[in-house]
Amino acid sequence: MFKSAELGNRVDDAKYAKEVAKLRADLLDAQYELLEDKSFPVIVLVNGVEGAGKGETVNLLNEWLDPRHVRSRAFGDPDEAERLRPPMWRFWQALPPKGKIAVLFGSWYTAPIVGRVVDKTSDGKLAAELSRVRSFEQLLVDDGAVLVKLWFHLSKKAQKKRLVALEKDKLTRWRVTAQDWRSFARYDAFRRVSEHVLRETSTGAAPWLVIDGSDPNYRALAAGRALLAALRARLGAAKEAARKNGKAGRKKNGASEDAAASMLRTLDTAGILKSLPFTERLSKPKYETKIVKAQATLGRLSRSSKMKKHAVVAVFEGMDAAGKGGAIRRITQAVDARHFSVVPIAAPTEEERARPYLWRFWRHVPRRGQFAIFDRSWYGRVLVERVEGFAAEDAWSRAYAEINEFEQELSDHGIVVVKFWLAITKDEQMKRFKEREATRHKQFKITAEDWRNRRKWDDYIVAASDMIDRTGTAYAPWTVIEANDKHLARVRVLETLNRRIREAL
Amino acid sequence: MFKSAELGNRVDDAKYAKEVAKLRADLLDAQYELLEDKSFPVIVLVNGVEGAGKGETVNLLNEWLDPRHVRSRAFGDPDEAERLRPPMWRFWQALPPKGKIAVLFGSWYTAPIVGRVVDKTSDGKLAAELSRVRSFEQLLVDDGAVLVKLWFHLSKKAQKKRLVALEKDKLTRWRVTAQDWRSFARYDAFRRVSEHVLRETSTGAAPWLVIDGSDPNYRALAAGRALLAALRARLGAAKEAARKNGKAGRKKNGASEDAAASMLRTLDTAGILKSLPFTERLSKPKYETKIVKAQATLGRLSRSSKMKKHAVVAVFEGMDAAGKGGAIRRITQAVDARHFSVVPIAAPTEEERARPYLWRFWRHVPRRGQFAIFDRSWYGRVLVERVEGFAAEDAWSRAYAEINEFEQELSDHGIVVVKFWLAITKDEQMKRFKEREATRHKQFKITAEDWRNRRKWDDYIVAASDMIDRTGTAYAPWTVIEANDKHLARVRVLETLNRRIREAL
Repeated sequence: MFKSAELGNRVDDAKYAKEVAKLRADLLDAQYELLEDKSFPVIVLVNGVEGAGKGETVNLLNEWLDPRHVRSRAFGDPDEAERLRPPMWRFWQALPPKGKIAVLFGSWYTAPIVGRVVDKTSDGKLAAELSRVRSFEQLLVDDGAVLVKLWFHLSKKAQKKRLVALEKDKLTRWRVTAQDWRSFARYDAFRRVSEHVLRETSTGAAPWLVIDGSDPNYRALAAGRALLAALRARLGAAKEAARKNGKAGRKKNGASEDAAASMLRTLDTAGILKSLPFTERLSKPKYETKIVKAQATLGRLSRSSKMKKHAVVAVFEGMDAAGKGGAIRRITQAVDARHFSVVPIAAPTEEERARPYLWRFWRHVPRRGQFAIFDRSWYGRVLVERVEGFAAEDAWSRAYAEINEFEQELSDHGIVVVKFWLAITKDEQMKRFKEREATRHKQFKITAEDWRNRRKWDDYIVAASDMIDRTGTAYAPWTVIEANDKHLARVRVLETLNRRIREAL
Repeated sequence: MFKSAELGNRVDDAKYAKEVAKLRADLLDAQYELLEDKSFPVIVLVNGVEGAGKGETVNLLNEWLDPRHVRSRAFGDPDEAERLRPPMWRFWQALPPKGKIAVLFGSWYTAPIVGRVVDKTSDGKLAAELSRVRSFEQLLVDDGAVLVKLWFHLSKKAQKKRLVALEKDKLTRWRVTAQDWRSFARYDAFRRVSEHVLRETSTGAAPWLVIDGSDPNYRALAAGRALLAALRARLGAAKEAARKNGKAGRKKNGASEDAAASMLRTLDTAGILKSLPFTERLSKPKYETKIVKAQATLGRLSRSSKMKKHAVVAVFEGMDAAGKGGAIRRITQAVDARHFSVVPIAAPTEEERARPYLWRFWRHVPRRGQFAIFDRSWYGRVLVERVEGFAAEDAWSRAYAEINEFEQELSDHGIVVVKFWLAITKDEQMKRFKEREATRHKQFKITAEDWRNRRKWDDYIVAASDMIDRTGTAYAPWTVIEANDKHLARVRVLETLNRRIREAL
């Protein structure tokens, strides 16, 4: 969840000044429309890492919006009245009426996360707390609320830099407390628990938006745009419903999910794939030594008696001609044919379309001891189906959570889930397309569809970046492989696979 | 959840024969319409107590429906192929395509319940499993499925009777195994865990229906009617959407919730309140002795130092003139005025209507050491708002789960939640209305609205019975008080309150 927020996203001052003027005007318009319309409340949660600009964002939102209709509340340690009542009591008090916006600084997420990291509460307790959080947010959504859940993130390095910078300046030194450094010492634990919490509570109707907090301009625009997109989508849906029914229609989950999907689209995650250098190369002789060695290791691992308690699910995604087939063959060469199956995924059949989209992948889940290698996969839902509009917006935006849940079930059962994105440049793809057209035995590999997909290159990059960002989990991480050099790619794939299997055994 | 299913509901053979002919014809019609329409799948879960007629119901559904388009699957212990894959794998295999009906005998609920009772898995593990179940069902519902979750129940006595009867008959003796008796020995644990599981997974879009399994005629009709209602509601919603949009509209949660609400309405729970005898009386002298004693006890408990860790929420519901005010005064007479507040609940204000309906009750949650006494309460959502149509069907049917969650939060915080339904007969109400009209100082108590409500007496009884059935939990049980005799009612209220507080301290 945090990958795209560690890219060092920046917006320079000139661009910021221009964009912010327009954003503020639009936000005010939307706020007044909401106030007029009074059909739903908006709840903005401001959470995240210390020093990532949470307080500054709350101040900015109050500056940008008409503050008479914004209710900001900061939740620190509970006061006496709060301690004497159930933990959710103070949050209920802070709920805004329809037509208004509440900005909550700290929220019902703080206590479960801090409890798990600092007081070492059990996994079971955390699970019960998150289950309660989901019920509460579902109640809000069912009641029509728009939830904007913002998580401001800093990498460990960026957080340290920020604390040091604040301490150096006499004017800001007071802002750094011993507590801040104590928290920093627990950065890794906080990161691990937060990622788990965000994933478990990122639902279709109330997803988390993780914002890179390192640049003030970037984070301000990201937060403002997300709020604006959610407001506009829901105001639009409300108007649409009113037009159709002759009155303001009941707010269904669908409306929330449309607002949520619009929010997600405002985040620029494409940097994950755009920032690749594509410089490394591997010579043929070196490749031949390395691939033989990696294949031997894989063969040995696949025959290990410990594999009987495990299985492997390997997922290959990437643009057309990225080299998925070639990489897969290097795996199958190394493993006994009785121990693997390759599952090529094309458009779903009629039988498959009649069921939830994950159904056809469940059919191919390997039994213990087996490898299942997917040449394209369930990620089609958030790639081709999203880009081509085969899946409705609420369906694909819900799919990230569904996929994470699916992969967790695999992982909990001892299945090693290894996911590769084979990245190539647009030029390299063109080179390969032409090569295929020119080579008799490769012509079958290139179709009119490949050329059509190529025209939507940028859309696919955005979709793939979102995918990597929202489904890269501790138990099923993505490995992005620079695949302009096929040799390098194949070796990296095998080495990654071997490492992940070894860790599991 | 099990109260209404222990009333010994019966349908005699003549009535059954008549009803079942009509039901079968209607079910077939609906099935063919579904088959034609192909816009959603139907999944019927058949779960419950051993001997409550699960197998028989599966057979009947196959007999009633066109079996070519029904897929029945029984899930026993997993076979080898299943054991070697993640637990949910076999259930995914059994999902029906759109247009078809799957009847699943045993389901994803069996393992968590048996695990908790027999293998004593932890609460945390159960919470994690139920969280996964909710995600899975949410996925199915989001994908458009209609889920009909049937739980066949038998009281402990009825289960024993059934096992003994089967054993006595030579022809059925083979059906009773040692395992059945072992399970019976764990009846109480199974009941407790099942109730928890059903409550935690009874969501707005996929609620549980608990069916009394003691009478074959009754349970068959109840199951068939629930399925029919769900089919009809969804087919109707699909047609409506098609008419509006010129094409089959996307299925939103709203459609599922309408189908779910229709299902709920087919259950006859009214027996809970209709079966009261109203025979007991308490003489004035006895009343005076008892009430003084009970008040003294309450006063002592309220001043106990242990109360500092607790609080009391007492809820009074009942028909107009049931004696709520009088009972409440007997409590407040006994408790120091600094320690209680009485919260009368009338129609919500504008400020309250602009927020989720539970908001105004959260405001009155007492701090530790305090009593909050609600004269009418959050149950208005499923009583007056349901009967008068102030809340949409999906909103009030969702409210049972929301209320259970709310009361659990109170209870987890150490608050004693005591809920009274003061039951009077219709004749008694008339007597009291007339008395009020005739007495100068009571005239203010009777309004035109009271007379209007009285005309909907039967609807209120149905709503109140559903409420008691679906929100009577281990941590916040309902106490139904026969209140035709005011003296008796007041003493019972105080004694119940004292007992619950004493248990908590």
